[in-house]
Amino acid sequence: MVQQAATIGIETTFEKPLADTEDAVREALSAEGFGVLTEIDVAATLRAKLGVERRALKILGACNPNFAHQALELDPSVALALPCNVVLEDAGEGRTHVVIADPRSMLGGSAASPGLVALGAEAAAALQRVLDQLEG
Amino acid sequence: MVQQAATIGIETTFEKPLADTEDAVREALSAEGFGVLTEIDVAATLRAKLGVERRALKILGACNPNFAHQALELDPSVALALPCNVVLEDAGEGRTHVVIADPRSMLGGSAASPGLVALGAEAAAALQRVLDQLEG
Repeated sequence: MVQQAATIGIETTFEKPLADTEDAVREALSAEGFGVLTEIDVAATLRAKLGVERRALKILGACNPNFAHQALELDPSVALALPCNVVLEDAGEGRTHVVIADPRSMLGGSAASPGLVALGAEAAAALQRVLDQLEG
Repeated sequence: MVQQAATIGIETTFEKPLADTEDAVREALSAEGFGVLTEIDVAATLRAKLGVERRALKILGACNPNFAHQALELDPSVALALPCNVVLEDAGEGRTHVVIADPRSMLGGSAASPGLVALGAEAAAALQRVLDQLEG
């Protein structure tokens, strides 16, 4: 499913409810130097705006200032892809599906500079460690 | 420059300072049904975190709940690409560069369903009207 969108994600499912997963995700992101700059409760927003009920879905906007600064210096258009989305969705039965936008797809367009590609790979490795830490 | 990143933007430059441009952008987005759900003052964040000085740069996260709801129903991985970034950057001499992430690149991956491609085109047309309204 994830491969259908232009942005590709690294993902996993945890045996914890969304609120507990969010706490663990925030802690693991912080350990890798990523702050959470934005937060959207998608389910609450759609309920408020459209009266629609759907399963819990939150989007955290994570950003590592060092990666962001270096990437913006290389290519100002990187701002279009910031922050990095961390999507938390209720998967039922007390489980939570977590998908993190892969910086390699955000920063590594076919015409991206070698520096940007390297930075995307470094950021992707850091975010993979976030997921590994959660799973460990 | 914009074409270097994986996410492509529709862009223009206004003969107004950033704060005035932001007011006009928010009004034009609202007229097309887009709310601003998130806001990142990138320059202030990098100054606070890294002590770096750079020209003013803000990222507004815009979302039209109707488009978002329909897109999420078609493909939950759309959450990786929400909200739609509206990037405002000081272009010097009282001008502001505005780039809006093109929903066709966000939603229209090569394997995207026809419904998602159509929705991306509809959202892109709405955002193009936002820029047209600002220029008018």
